[in-house]
Amino acid sequence: MIDVMLLGTGAMTPLPGRWLSSALVRSEGSLVLLDCGEGTQVAMRERGWGFRRLDALCLSHLHADHVAGVPGLLHTVANAGRTSPLHIYGPAGTVDVIEGLRTIARDLPYEVRVRELASGDEIDGPGELRIRVAAGEHRVPVLGYRFGRSRAPKFDADRAREMGVPVKAWSVLQRGEDVEVAGRVFEPSMVIGEQRSGVALGFATDTRPTDTLRELISGVDLLIAEGTYGVDDDGDKAITHRHMTFRESAQLAAKAGVGHLWLTHFSASMLNPVDWRGNATDVFPHVTIGRAGLEGRLNFDTGYEEIQMKEECRGLSH
Amino acid sequence: MIDVMLLGTGAMTPLPGRWLSSALVRSEGSLVLLDCGEGTQVAMRERGWGFRRLDALCLSHLHADHVAGVPGLLHTVANAGRTSPLHIYGPAGTVDVIEGLRTIARDLPYEVRVRELASGDEIDGPGELRIRVAAGEHRVPVLGYRFGRSRAPKFDADRAREMGVPVKAWSVLQRGEDVEVAGRVFEPSMVIGEQRSGVALGFATDTRPTDTLRELISGVDLLIAEGTYGVDDDGDKAITHRHMTFRESAQLAAKAGVGHLWLTHFSASMLNPVDWRGNATDVFPHVTIGRAGLEGRLNFDTGYEEIQMKEECRGLSH
Repeated sequence: MIDVMLLGTGAMTPLPGRWLSSALVRSEGSLVLLDCGEGTQVAMRERGWGFRRLDALCLSHLHADHVAGVPGLLHTVANAGRTSPLHIYGPAGTVDVIEGLRTIARDLPYEVRVRELASGDEIDGPGELRIRVAAGEHRVPVLGYRFGRSRAPKFDADRAREMGVPVKAWSVLQRGEDVEVAGRVFEPSMVIGEQRSGVALGFATDTRPTDTLRELISGVDLLIAEGTYGVDDDGDKAITHRHMTFRESAQLAAKAGVGHLWLTHFSASMLNPVDWRGNATDVFPHVTIGRAGLEGRLNFDTGYEEIQMKEECRGLSH
Repeated sequence: MIDVMLLGTGAMTPLPGRWLSSALVRSEGSLVLLDCGEGTQVAMRERGWGFRRLDALCLSHLHADHVAGVPGLLHTVANAGRTSPLHIYGPAGTVDVIEGLRTIARDLPYEVRVRELASGDEIDGPGELRIRVAAGEHRVPVLGYRFGRSRAPKFDADRAREMGVPVKAWSVLQRGEDVEVAGRVFEPSMVIGEQRSGVALGFATDTRPTDTLRELISGVDLLIAEGTYGVDDDGDKAITHRHMTFRESAQLAAKAGVGHLWLTHFSASMLNPVDWRGNATDVFPHVTIGRAGLEGRLNFDTGYEEIQMKEECRGLSH
């Protein structure tokens, strides 16, 4: 299971009532933050998932509206009592940018480990998440992310009982090891069923739609993608500034066969992004227009599910 | 005349409903921002004084909660169309910190001129403001600021008419130059009255009360000062962390003979700073507990005046 929440949906500059685009992922209690513009820590505080368990920050790219909140966040995580290392991942250049920003966040009670990733890299993240990245296409290096959680193959308990495998030996077989009981050897293949698919989340912002990204996010349960422009007529702007329209983002989602699409990273000139939802659903039906506090859950059995908000949507936040 | 507005009142970390402590000064159309923590640009946008005319940023010190908003602000000022230089003043170390933060704000359509000031320095700022600084006492170098506007001496029009000075020559005399009319020389002293006092604003945050600061802010019409702790019992904390209680700040105001005091920079643990106003007014009567959007005007003739808010105070903002 992976929980995910949008913290903000804005592009370029934080606005009253619209935090900059970022998202928070929770898996096995670990938190992973996706992008951190100015004010993201305030949005995090509003949402109440805490700061101390923030194990990783994944940066799409190094434009200020996606990273300027890093030094403040590092202080706030420190004040929350964190002492174990915090990992920061991002594209080429991340080490220098974090070093520059840490001019005002030098002394922290935990280590900050920065690692630059290249297209195709795959690493073990916190919370049993497998993180894979691929290059997008923007004015600067940008990465799309895929966060996957695999699932153990089904264990056939009935069959194990039939074969007389003692219950205390089940976990050994589940780990993939042989067990010898009273001179008889049991192998995992006897009781372990077929591989089961896990769940996966995709994140693609500040990019044109590309084949590389499509492959990266292929079949994810939920894709969080930018839709900087709602109106189809802004297609030229999207090309010039290396962004996507709602329609382009939805086309990417459709081609990649994702389960559901959240649109975010809205141009400041777009006051009511929901007005243009039809431009996305024209080509892909399962679209939610992002808003701060939008929550989803990726279930092993049932896939994507939207969590109903516990509180009324705040004033202008969308 | 000087206009001034509080943008936020928080210490250490930006909170939902409480922006970090900072203030905006307006004089002759020029804007000067005092401190710029994370989110200050959002507070500025909420208040509507604009960004393009931001001529100077004065930093009290270099802790993240007073400077982390700089890179985002620089971009927003650029987007507002500024092309003329923006000055940044601050204590020793400012050049390095701004250089570090500009890792994500390199290419701007205007020049950023950073100047480190030392205690006692006095410079000409924008908007006919004379800026003087003095060292405070904090865990890192900190500066208090005094912003003064002088006023031209009174011109005695009746006397000028009596003496037969042609009206077109008045402005020359007002500039302090002699004028010869029909062989007769008029000197400024003949028609220029006594020097008139101008107006002045003081700003002292993240500091203990010191004699040096008291001298700096002596007689200002309005002092914006930190009151990190409302409760007198937090006096020990104030000493340890090099801050002031409401009472200490009010004592400083009283000793310096200021006209009015705004308290700001409230500890996050103080939910309703106004509850502790009495600890300040015990020693100095003219105290306003700061809130985002609090506006004042320093008039040449009448001194400090609080501007009534045009809109209802926003939710939790104080």
